[in-house]
Amino acid sequence: MKKQLEWKISEYSPDSEPFYMEVNGEIRLAEEAYAEKIPVMLKGPTGCGKSRFVQYMAYRFNQKNGRRTPLVTVNCHEDLTADDLKGRYLLSGKFEDGPALVAVKKGGLLYLDEVVEARQDTIVVIHPLGDDRRIMTVERLGKVFEAPDTFSLWVSYNPGYQKKTKDLKQSTKQRFVAINFSYPSKDIETQIIMKEAGIEQSTAQALTQIGAKIRNAKGKGLEEGASTRLLINAGKFIRKGISPLVACEAAILNPITDDVEAYRSVHDGLADVVRSFFPE
Amino acid sequence: MKKQLEWKISEYSPDSEPFYMEVNGEIRLAEEAYAEKIPVMLKGPTGCGKSRFVQYMAYRFNQKNGRRTPLVTVNCHEDLTADDLKGRYLLSGKFEDGPALVAVKKGGLLYLDEVVEARQDTIVVIHPLGDDRRIMTVERLGKVFEAPDTFSLWVSYNPGYQKKTKDLKQSTKQRFVAINFSYPSKDIETQIIMKEAGIEQSTAQALTQIGAKIRNAKGKGLEEGASTRLLINAGKFIRKGISPLVACEAAILNPITDDVEAYRSVHDGLADVVRSFFPE
Amino acid sequence: MKKQLEWKISEYSPDSEPFYMEVNGEIRLAEEAYAEKIPVMLKGPTGCGKSRFVQYMAYRFNQKNGRRTPLVTVNCHEDLTADDLKGRYLLSGKFEDGPALVAVKKGGLLYLDEVVEARQDTIVVIHPLGDDRRIMTVERLGKVFEAPDTFSLWVSYNPGYQKKTKDLKQSTKQRFVAINFSYPSKDIETQIIMKEAGIEQSTAQALTQIGAKIRNAKGKGLEEGASTRLLINAGKFIRKGISPLVACEAAILNPITDDVEAYRSVHDGLADVVRSFFPE
Amino acid sequence: MKKQLEWKISEYSPDSEPFYMEVNGEIRLAEEAYAEKIPVMLKGPTGCGKSRFVQYMAYRFNQKNGRRTPLVTVNCHEDLTADDLKGRYLLSGKFEDGPALVAVKKGGLLYLDEVVEARQDTIVVIHPLGDDRRIMTVERLGKVFEAPDTFSLWVSYNPGYQKKTKDLKQSTKQRFVAINFSYPSKDIETQIIMKEAGIEQSTAQALTQIGAKIRNAKGKGLEEGASTRLLINAGKFIRKGISPLVACEAAILNPITDDVEAYRSVHDGLADVVRSFFPE
Amino acid sequence: MKKQLEWKISEYSPDSEPFYMEVNGEIRLAEEAYAEKIPVMLKGPTGCGKSRFVQYMAYRFNQKNGRRTPLVTVNCHEDLTADDLKGRYLLSGKFEDGPALVAVKKGGLLYLDEVVEARQDTIVVIHPLGDDRRIMTVERLGKVFEAPDTFSLWVSYNPGYQKKTKDLKQSTKQRFVAINFSYPSKDIETQIIMKEAGIEQSTAQALTQIGAKIRNAKGKGLEEGASTRLLINAGKFIRKGISPLVACEAAILNPITDDVEAYRSVHDGLADVVRSFFPE
Amino acid sequence: MKKQLEWKISEYSPDSEPFYMEVNGEIRLAEEAYAEKIPVMLKGPTGCGKSRFVQYMAYRFNQKNGRRTPLVTVNCHEDLTADDLKGRYLLSGKFEDGPALVAVKKGGLLYLDEVVEARQDTIVVIHPLGDDRRIMTVERLGKVFEAPDTFSLWVSYNPGYQKKTKDLKQSTKQRFVAINFSYPSKDIETQIIMKEAGIEQSTAQALTQIGAKIRNAKGKGLEEGASTRLLINAGKFIRKGISPLVACEAAILNPITDDVEAYRSVHDGLADVVRSFFPE
Repeated sequence: MKKQLEWKISEYSPDSEPFYMEVNGEIRLAEEAYAEKIPVMLKGPTGCGKSRFVQYMAYRFNQKNGRRTPLVTVNCHEDLTADDLKGRYLLSGKFEDGPALVAVKKGGLLYLDEVVEARQDTIVVIHPLGDDRRIMTVERLGKVFEAPDTFSLWVSYNPGYQKKTKDLKQSTKQRFVAINFSYPSKDIETQIIMKEAGIEQSTAQALTQIGAKIRNAKGKGLEEGASTRLLINAGKFIRKGISPLVACEAAILNPITDDVEAYRSVHDGLADVVRSFFPE
Repeated sequence: MKKQLEWKISEYSPDSEPFYMEVNGEIRLAEEAYAEKIPVMLKGPTGCGKSRFVQYMAYRFNQKNGRRTPLVTVNCHEDLTADDLKGRYLLSGKFEDGPALVAVKKGGLLYLDEVVEARQDTIVVIHPLGDDRRIMTVERLGKVFEAPDTFSLWVSYNPGYQKKTKDLKQSTKQRFVAINFSYPSKDIETQIIMKEAGIEQSTAQALTQIGAKIRNAKGKGLEEGASTRLLINAGKFIRKGISPLVACEAAILNPITDDVEAYRSVHDGLADVVRSFFPE
Repeated sequence: MKKQLEWKISEYSPDSEPFYMEVNGEIRLAEEAYAEKIPVMLKGPTGCGKSRFVQYMAYRFNQKNGRRTPLVTVNCHEDLTADDLKGRYLLSGKFEDGPALVAVKKGGLLYLDEVVEARQDTIVVIHPLGDDRRIMTVERLGKVFEAPDTFSLWVSYNPGYQKKTKDLKQSTKQRFVAINFSYPSKDIETQIIMKEAGIEQSTAQALTQIGAKIRNAKGKGLEEGASTRLLINAGKFIRKGISPLVACEAAILNPITDDVEAYRSVHDGLADVVRSFFPE
Repeated sequence: MKKQLEWKISEYSPDSEPFYMEVNGEIRLAEEAYAEKIPVMLKGPTGCGKSRFVQYMAYRFNQKNGRRTPLVTVNCHEDLTADDLKGRYLLSGKFEDGPALVAVKKGGLLYLDEVVEARQDTIVVIHPLGDDRRIMTVERLGKVFEAPDTFSLWVSYNPGYQKKTKDLKQSTKQRFVAINFSYPSKDIETQIIMKEAGIEQSTAQALTQIGAKIRNAKGKGLEEGASTRLLINAGKFIRKGISPLVACEAAILNPITDDVEAYRSVHDGLADVVRSFFPE
Repeated sequence: MKKQLEWKISEYSPDSEPFYMEVNGEIRLAEEAYAEKIPVMLKGPTGCGKSRFVQYMAYRFNQKNGRRTPLVTVNCHEDLTADDLKGRYLLSGKFEDGPALVAVKKGGLLYLDEVVEARQDTIVVIHPLGDDRRIMTVERLGKVFEAPDTFSLWVSYNPGYQKKTKDLKQSTKQRFVAINFSYPSKDIETQIIMKEAGIEQSTAQALTQIGAKIRNAKGKGLEEGASTRLLINAGKFIRKGISPLVACEAAILNPITDDVEAYRSVHDGLADVVRSFFPE
Repeated sequence: MKKQLEWKISEYSPDSEPFYMEVNGEIRLAEEAYAEKIPVMLKGPTGCGKSRFVQYMAYRFNQKNGRRTPLVTVNCHEDLTADDLKGRYLLSGKFEDGPALVAVKKGGLLYLDEVVEARQDTIVVIHPLGDDRRIMTVERLGKVFEAPDTFSLWVSYNPGYQKKTKDLKQSTKQRFVAINFSYPSKDIETQIIMKEAGIEQSTAQALTQIGAKIRNAKGKGLEEGASTRLLINAGKFIRKGISPLVACEAAILNPITDDVEAYRSVHDGLADVVRSFFPE
């Protein structure tokens, strides 16, 4: 059967359970926040599972509610306007519901990824959605929409690289319960790499060790550590028969730095570690 | 009966009395300003009840007037234009009244939340509404509208984080009577938390104490104290059986700071206080 | 009879004589400038009566001319464009006359309030209106309009808070005769407060004294003195039975400063003065 | 007969000879430049007669050519776009010729007033008009227009307040012959004031002296001297019976400075001079 | 037969094998990344073959897949918006698929050249395409598109001249495997020049030497070394009989620097080297 | 016969041979670059003949090819967008080809004058036109256009006043062969002035000497030397009988500097030189 490649935004949500391993009680907290209609904020470095967690929880909520409401993801950026979220009139005269309005009307999960990138007018849209009013005013339609009970509001960002000018205002922050994310523990990360890259435990363990070394170099030339996702990519290359050193260079080291000095200083250490785990 | 989830802006106002506890004579002042048609400015930190107060007063005015006029809330931001307030022509040729025009024509309460975020052209719209002329010129319609007697103009902002560049001009400020808001007293805050989180008095008192400790840390690493709203969120988690420390971290501490140093220094103190109030 | 709440811009002008007390010969100067078709510039602090003076003169000109031409007020701001003044085509294909074109065609009084806030392209529109050509070119219509004899051009601004970057250019300034405004003398201010707030002379005198004290604090923490309008607001509260100190705080002191230090230092002095004039 | 108050841009030019007194051979130079099709640049302080000179020359060219071509004036500013000059499609589908295209097609005089205020894309429009190609490409129409022989290009600006960032580029400047303007000599200025203000010679001479004093104060607090236009305004007030000191304050001193210190230091000197010429 | 000069974007891909010489195992890595659906990032100086490599790989993938899917190249720049990538409604009411949507729907290769030049909203479009979701949300259509198996995402940039403000964020970088490009070895470069310029080996070798000298001057006045492309241009001129020194000046030295000092210091060295290889 | 004053862009090219005197082998270089389809970059100060050279070469190419293809000139500036070059849909639904698309489709010469003024998105349009792909993608049409053999791409700029922020990127520069222009030699310049101003050799020689003196003052107060064009203008004035000193002031000195100090210091030297060549 041919796979479906096209959905309406109002119908899009995970149809099978996404793979997610709990790290530190975050599932319970998210469920209670959902039950109490408190918006949820996820904070942590890139590639540590925040977006996957949202997909997983959206799936759970749908299972629990016994009906499918959409997971509406908005990737925030500087040029995203309030109208992009709420909707606008088409030239045809029809009003096109924006993603936030879709989520409000359908009672789905509205997820603003990298919310600190958004401009104030985006942020402001979620203020009345994020307190006990749970409303969104769509001036273009001359209407006020109240979110149904199944609606929930989620945001995420990486506090590691906020610039002062891009920090969220306290009036925004103080609408949320916040869950701090970090890299998974070595055991959990090993299991994730094994499953996602399709490799053996020993190889996955070696990659976990290599990841830890790279993360230690953060601040010593590297602006950010390597995410679990990069370790999985390296694992996939190794499975395909590419030499471990080439795989780790291309998948882990090359992507994360352009700085020649940083590259060199980290590269030699990486090569030694790779060789120690993958003797030729 | 199914709850109504969709209103016209021109018909939206609280239909039951919002919960509001007076702090310091603000109800009387607001009522006299309304009677004398003096615009009202609310100043104070985030989450201390300014918006709730507006909802409460809108409800009272409607009760007193014996008819329902709308509460029109505009969340101000940098990209809000004069046309967003006044209205614009749709492609269909119909003129769409903006929220300020709706409030003027219907004689409702126009509330500009976080007014300092607005640009000068938004502010300028309210100048002739805010003096004895009480008019709004809508150039697009070629018309001048005078506000009916029930119309009133309200603005709010948090003086704590105004940047110099975003301060209101004196020609704006000197149109208003101003009411200064602050966190409620401990007794009042305890009652609010009990009612809103559905918890016992002793738990609410403990949270009030914790809130006071956190507020003391303002300036010592924290940019702003925790609002009553956050204490309520923590109360809700505790009611659901989440451990008080986890509840206070997720609901109070995690949302308000991204600064690693500030987090650590406040966290230990918080943990001690939480344990002293909630011995395990 | 129900009051009219909606006018065409081209028909809006004061229909009864606005209350205005002359301060220093400004009426004569304005009348001769009008007779000689010299544009008029009003300079002075906020709330000292500039806009009221324009309304008053517009009423006088209409009386003198024996016919009613509009008073067209434009509140200037950074986003006001030349097209906002001149007009634009609607989607329907109709050309919508902007406020400046309305004033030119109808021979009314065009008043640009806070003109220094306007961008250069607004200012430039008034250059050929402000010299002996008295013309406005409307490129969109492909036309040049000459103002009839009853047309006059007025601008106002507060020289107290011009930033260097926002100063008018000499080529603009040197088109105008300029009248400097200031706070009225104590006697005149007392009469104004009595009349506008509906209070007795002694109360109005006390408020005039309080206003003078606050104005003395300008520069010592306060960015601007309190305008007559604020004293009137305080008078209204006192008439309604609110205690003079509360009235003066809410109407005079709270609106004009957000600075905690300035607030405190002025507040104590204010309280003493209020008590000396209104012994309890 | 009722005066005509509305023209097409393509038909607007002075229909009687504007009053202009030659200062320093500029008429001859302008005529030869016109004959040789060299664009003309006028440089000098505000109010010294640059725009009047353009009107005068336009009238002369029309007389000489024996036919009337338009004088098209564009007041330059930061928001003027290339399309504003060239033209654009209306919603009706009709192409609206911009002022520059009108001047090119009709062979008129195109005058860009305060050209340094324009953005690069305006300037660039005149480059191919300002060399021997004498063409303007209108991309929207897919056409290239060559100017007829009677077309001429003029620009003016005040070199006194150019900011570095707003200076014309050499590639623009080196397309023009440039005529430097300054304030007229005392004798000529006296005659201009007499004629324009309708006053006697002795009064005009006194105002010329006062103007010279004020111009000497340039740099000592004043950013620019008083133009002839301001002296004329003062003359008109004096003719109407306003006291010379009040007239000079309102017409000359008040408009040109907002600086309190500068005002005071110049004011006393001004008062002495006025009294010496107009003893009461 | 007349050559085809016009294609649909959705049908454009190389129809003969582009000339490409492998430098360092990059073909294998790119093939495995394609097989594993990992996005590919190419990093290196201008003119070292990155874009040619993409054309070559697109041809290979089409050969391997046995069907032709498009190579969609987007040259990134600051003004490229998300809508430019996704598509927009035409005035006719038809939706015009943007290049990214074309590539997603057709399962082609989407190549963002100089990706660091793009704004955040462009970058954000590729985030969900660049992880295991492989989706693109087109809000204007209210739809979510999932990329078919043959789709792949490629980006390139020159890490040599990133400004801090234009660096990619880690959340973008950590979606890719990265291949570092550099200038080819002398032998390979000689072969490339011979083939592309149509010259003999000895001439090509001389140009390779000259290129190496120029590259050594990087940092000593030159901001970047000469690319292989410039050496090819010089080769073409020499083949046409232009003197080697003139050819090298015009093709190699003149284009790469405007700095007079740098020009002179490099020029003399260049002249000596050219003469040594091409004795007259 | 009436001269044609209006062309389609797609048909505009010089119909008689433009006057051009070769300076240093640039014709040969340009012809070979054209034959090899290498884009050409012209660098040099304003008014030294770059644009005239392009017109001359366009004429030659048309003569050589035996058919007339258009010369499409685009004067670059900051607000020129990619769509301005490629084209856009009109409201009528018709697509209007932009100048670059016209040149590509007709196989003409596309000349971007002052290319450094253009924004990145303009520059990026020419990247795929400027390498061996010779294509332009027009996203609005969903099409890729390949340039026919007669198409060529030319750019010019003045390296003398590039600001760092406006320099072309190496990835742009390294697509071109570059020809450096400068002022012509004295003999050639004399001939040019004679021919263009219609004056005798001795007068032209004197102006050449005066030009040389002024160019020497570059850096000593003058930002740029006087171009040949200005010397021609002076020559024209002298031919018309204007005194040489007045002619040189108006045509040469006045246009190139606004700086009072620079003006004075250069003026005296100029006057001496003029007098020595034109004794009265």
